[in-house]
Amino acid sequence: MSTARDPAPLDPVDHIAIAVPDVAAAVAWYTSNFRCDVRYQDDTWAFLAFENVKLALVVPAQHPPHLAFRRADAESFGPLKTHRDGTRSVYVRDPAGNSIEILAAD
Amino acid sequence: MSTARDPAPLDPVDHIAIAVPDVAAAVAWYTSNFRCDVRYQDDTWAFLAFENVKLALVVPAQHPPHLAFRRADAESFGPLKTHRDGTRSVYVRDPAGNSIEILAAD
Repeated sequence: MSTARDPAPLDPVDHIAIAVPDVAAAVAWYTSNFRCDVRYQDDTWAFLAFENVKLALVVPAQHPPHLAFRRADAESFGPLKTHRDGTRSVYVRDPAGNSIEILAAD
Repeated sequence: MSTARDPAPLDPVDHIAIAVPDVAAAVAWYTSNFRCDVRYQDDTWAFLAFENVKLALVVPAQHPPHLAFRRADAESFGPLKTHRDGTRSVYVRDPAGNSIEILAAD
């Protein structure tokens, strides 16, 4: 029996979204250079799964590049919007102006 | 006994580096809004650990924003440079021009 307590859990990063002008060319490059699974792909964005985090490749005119965290208390960052895939999130900006998405944990 | 084989392993993302003009302000914001550990901080960059991946906050004039993968065969992407902290890596660009760092697994 141990009396040591686990350290406080850290928040997980759900995905990173980076800008690419040509989604098909980017998917071809990432899948030929890295071991990843293509979870979704159309002309405006693609979603690649890596071992520990997902990478979104987005046409910036249609989807903002961003970093997404998953939180049980996402609502505390602002009103959540429900997306077509059923996920709920809110976008905020860090002090540098980077777009940060806070996804509900459910 | 199972005859099923594990799926092929996926590559891990080691860290994401995003641009911030003021490292101290960014660290204050991320640590007050999220559960993360500050692993390193100076005036030009900081390194925050989240549950599954690390986030570097970088002054872009001194460090390029990038996405870093860890690979056993990092040398296959180009000659590795040894950094002050002992890590070895090479930077490449994806077809969109995003900086991608390939870190040696050792």
